[in-house]
Amino acid sequence: MTDLKPFIDKLNSLDFDKMYNEDFLLTWEKSPDELEAVFTIADTLRHLRENNVSTKIFDSGLGISLFRDNSTRTRFSFASACNLLGLEVQDLDEGKSQISHGETVRETANMISFMADVIGIRDDMYIGKGNTYMREVSEAVQDGNKEGVLEQRPTLVNLQCDIDHPTQAMADAMHLIQEFGGLENLKGKKIAMTWAYSPSYGKPLSVPQGIIGLMTRLGMDVVLAHPEGYEVMPEVEEVARQNAAESGGKFTKTNSMAEAFADADIVYPKSWAPFAAMEKRTELYGDGDQAGIDALEKELLKQNQDHKDWECTEELMKTTKDGKALYMHCLPADITGVSCEEGEVEASVFDRYRTELYKEASYKPYIIAAMIFLSKVKKPQEVLTKLAEAKTPRELEKE
Amino acid sequence: MTDLKPFIDKLNSLDFDKMYNEDFLLTWEKSPDELEAVFTIADTLRHLRENNVSTKIFDSGLGISLFRDNSTRTRFSFASACNLLGLEVQDLDEGKSQISHGETVRETANMISFMADVIGIRDDMYIGKGNTYMREVSEAVQDGNKEGVLEQRPTLVNLQCDIDHPTQAMADAMHLIQEFGGLENLKGKKIAMTWAYSPSYGKPLSVPQGIIGLMTRLGMDVVLAHPEGYEVMPEVEEVARQNAAESGGKFTKTNSMAEAFADADIVYPKSWAPFAAMEKRTELYGDGDQAGIDALEKELLKQNQDHKDWECTEELMKTTKDGKALYMHCLPADITGVSCEEGEVEASVFDRYRTELYKEASYKPYIIAAMIFLSKVKKPQEVLTKLAEAKTPRELEKE
Amino acid sequence: MTDLKPFIDKLNSLDFDKMYNEDFLLTWEKSPDELEAVFTIADTLRHLRENNVSTKIFDSGLGISLFRDNSTRTRFSFASACNLLGLEVQDLDEGKSQISHGETVRETANMISFMADVIGIRDDMYIGKGNTYMREVSEAVQDGNKEGVLEQRPTLVNLQCDIDHPTQAMADAMHLIQEFGGLENLKGKKIAMTWAYSPSYGKPLSVPQGIIGLMTRLGMDVVLAHPEGYEVMPEVEEVARQNAAESGGKFTKTNSMAEAFADADIVYPKSWAPFAAMEKRTELYGDGDQAGIDALEKELLKQNQDHKDWECTEELMKTTKDGKALYMHCLPADITGVSCEEGEVEASVFDRYRTELYKEASYKPYIIAAMIFLSKVKKPQEVLTKLAEAKTPRELEKE
Repeated sequence: MTDLKPFIDKLNSLDFDKMYNEDFLLTWEKSPDELEAVFTIADTLRHLRENNVSTKIFDSGLGISLFRDNSTRTRFSFASACNLLGLEVQDLDEGKSQISHGETVRETANMISFMADVIGIRDDMYIGKGNTYMREVSEAVQDGNKEGVLEQRPTLVNLQCDIDHPTQAMADAMHLIQEFGGLENLKGKKIAMTWAYSPSYGKPLSVPQGIIGLMTRLGMDVVLAHPEGYEVMPEVEEVARQNAAESGGKFTKTNSMAEAFADADIVYPKSWAPFAAMEKRTELYGDGDQAGIDALEKELLKQNQDHKDWECTEELMKTTKDGKALYMHCLPADITGVSCEEGEVEASVFDRYRTELYKEASYKPYIIAAMIFLSKVKKPQEVLTKLAEAKTPRELEKE
Repeated sequence: MTDLKPFIDKLNSLDFDKMYNEDFLLTWEKSPDELEAVFTIADTLRHLRENNVSTKIFDSGLGISLFRDNSTRTRFSFASACNLLGLEVQDLDEGKSQISHGETVRETANMISFMADVIGIRDDMYIGKGNTYMREVSEAVQDGNKEGVLEQRPTLVNLQCDIDHPTQAMADAMHLIQEFGGLENLKGKKIAMTWAYSPSYGKPLSVPQGIIGLMTRLGMDVVLAHPEGYEVMPEVEEVARQNAAESGGKFTKTNSMAEAFADADIVYPKSWAPFAAMEKRTELYGDGDQAGIDALEKELLKQNQDHKDWECTEELMKTTKDGKALYMHCLPADITGVSCEEGEVEASVFDRYRTELYKEASYKPYIIAAMIFLSKVKKPQEVLTKLAEAKTPRELEKE
Repeated sequence: MTDLKPFIDKLNSLDFDKMYNEDFLLTWEKSPDELEAVFTIADTLRHLRENNVSTKIFDSGLGISLFRDNSTRTRFSFASACNLLGLEVQDLDEGKSQISHGETVRETANMISFMADVIGIRDDMYIGKGNTYMREVSEAVQDGNKEGVLEQRPTLVNLQCDIDHPTQAMADAMHLIQEFGGLENLKGKKIAMTWAYSPSYGKPLSVPQGIIGLMTRLGMDVVLAHPEGYEVMPEVEEVARQNAAESGGKFTKTNSMAEAFADADIVYPKSWAPFAAMEKRTELYGDGDQAGIDALEKELLKQNQDHKDWECTEELMKTTKDGKALYMHCLPADITGVSCEEGEVEASVFDRYRTELYKEASYKPYIIAAMIFLSKVKKPQEVLTKLAEAKTPRELEKE
């Protein structure tokens, strides 16, 4: 049978008791040990699955996905994670729901949660809204549980909000751990989280914010680069600054893509919308000012046009560490000449890293499953051992 | 282990053999013993789940939800019930289906049922249509089963029709049983099922009809109150009258909300559309007369305006039994100053009963599961005992 | 216990090793032994289910359905098949996905497949597109698997493309095997695959092509009949011709419905669009020429009008073998006076064969399950025996 000892030993060395029965909303609310527990559980679940061992810890139960907008990939990642653990997914999106017709968040949250073990929420559209909404839902179901309405507390997983994108950032980190041969090897590595040109408008800030908020925890040398006017949320910059101070890493900012790329071990060029503009858009939506929204969109697209030179080119890649920095992206990317005329990245660069990019994405279902696992299982080491001993085949054939 | 004896003893005292392989369409088609069997099974399933014992009686199989309109809560209740028993839900709503493009009911019913164990239907829009449609579907799949097309007979659960809302009324009754400490304690209790003002239009009649149709069975003193012109279906009133005569309960009508509330043990103030108007609307839809439909809507909204005083206020609540009647609602309610300017209930009344209201709703998945259980399981006592002995943990951790 | 020996003996006599880890895209890419293995496994799965034996070979895992257009029945058949084997279905249709917004097929295919064991695709709209698209998806996930992105290779099942409709044709064949008492009894039987009038436009060619492509393999006397101008794809006609030569069957063409029906054992009258017109339509769509598309539709509907006499009437049925040919249809049919004024078939003919038609359809979930089973299970005989011995009840009650 598959040997779980290295995984169990690692878990035994970590302190993550407080994750039980808790949500996962922002990476910087979790301790370094807790983050490492997530990586370790994700690894263990993947190991068991690769060895055809069932990791179903639920015999029945629901995982609720609550999305403000459609998202195939996030939906599939969450569904995969739930399925891996034995939960059946029920989707609640605006189209199918009455959530937008004046029902209070509190009521809906309870009404859909009678048999829900976990709720995954993606709400990244409006600054100041998504994360707040998640906390409202969490509070509602905690109250419901305390008051005897819900037999269990459904825990929450943030599948992307206005502030952070923890499942993406954690999957990205897991990719780096694999590529660089261990968490400890990330210390001091330079990662360039840089803005890049895109012909589209209003891409969320949660990815750059998630990256600077997490990678600074891991002792990395994090450079945030963007044209003037494309600032991210100042609160998150402050988080990154403090993280770096605590972890022995670095957090610096620049308005030069070239400077960010210079000697970088990792580059993460990706478009996003300016924080101030997104804040303005949120207000316009609140006021129902469609003319204002349209005007803002035009303005932002025009502003983007001034920065077409922010592209991840072969030339720029040559300036990175040994000319071989690891190129990362949360996908889908705007690839010049492929998905758009001018975009975030030159086609030949993207092509060269395609397999790595797909692998980067492949960690997400396991990261989500690990977050769920740690919030639902009080004694993970015992349960993992039980699963390994039970050896229930995931696929009968391969027993 | 959890002790099932009280549940099994209760079931042994009841006669419910005829529920096996049968639909659940109207509460008044079921005997008092059969209704009590539903309550008892629902209780038992909740007890087992609370003790982390799996109640999966199906290893595979489908539960089909067939909705004429979207309904988040009904969908989640049905999905929860199916999941609890081991069935996977497949939704069929108009958006996804070809049902509206001229296919006959008979054919579609068979085509989606090859591996369906249960079909849950919600069709409450048009008077004279919903329940009839359910019976057509039921007949179609019974024929399919007899003729060897379907290996099993998928049984039906009425998730709301034009006549009754059995899963709501039964969950409401279960809430009352809990609140008043037993089914026998409901005898003689006064319940005021009253109309209340809402700024919206065309709310279904199935809730008041379901309540007067069921609570009169339980020996309660049922008062139906509404302004003149807001009559419910006369057939259902007749059912309520006969039920009361048989059960030793009472069924009275009044056009005064105050009269209904006076000394009531339970109040259930809720808006609905006049039966005659809904009948007219059904005809107009049949004729495709959009202008007529619009005119009717205007007229009805105007008519509603005359009855804004039909609101469940603190003042009215004081007139109930000890000023402490149990406030009920199927949710979502139109709360004055919260979900609308003027509505069915004063915010402070709603707030005081929120937890009770959520609990009331929490019985629905168990009631649905119990209805499915009784239609699929020939010897419930044996199967429940088997589940309790198997002690398969619903959640591995909690073994 | 249920006796699997006849099924196992049959499988032992067949050579189908190459089906393991392979897609099922066109029936004529499979050997006669491989087709018979599908029939046999479908039979075995149905036998086990009828005997209340669970056929779940997966403890967890996803089945992805990827549809270009909504299709209730195909969706339910695929979901039933997946559920029967223990896979949870996740739907990806255009409405829910970003697939249409410029993402490459390769990327999306990998992103949704991290935990996918099987992908069912329906893409029958555009000539030259559907099957090609399936092969692109297949190649993408094979690459993903080789490169370590996907831990398993999700195999594909063609749920209908522009060229073939293998799950329909195979289910139809299984129906014939049952009706005529064995595969060997189909040799020499005359089947009339004929065009029929429909007031609608653009029905896919995959059914007639699937039928002539498969039934010629089984040694049948296949007649393809249609008005001039309603040709199917010439490549598929060529396939049918070669099949007939190899199997000892026959493949002939005629422009007379009467000739096709004369002395036929089986008739399959069904509307379809002319191949050339569908090819033109595909080009027009490619050019975004909406005016051209509208003009083409008008033209085709007009052309259809000239062939209203292509109807399966009682009179024509009398000319078949003993006046009792088996009437087949993939459903839904255009029934004269029922679903349309003038259609493919007289109501009394359709009515007489309704039960047979429903049974014909009932094989599809089992055929799909068998295709999945053979692509995922290396040693089917062993696994089937294991299932039969485990005797896990599908429904607890019936143990």
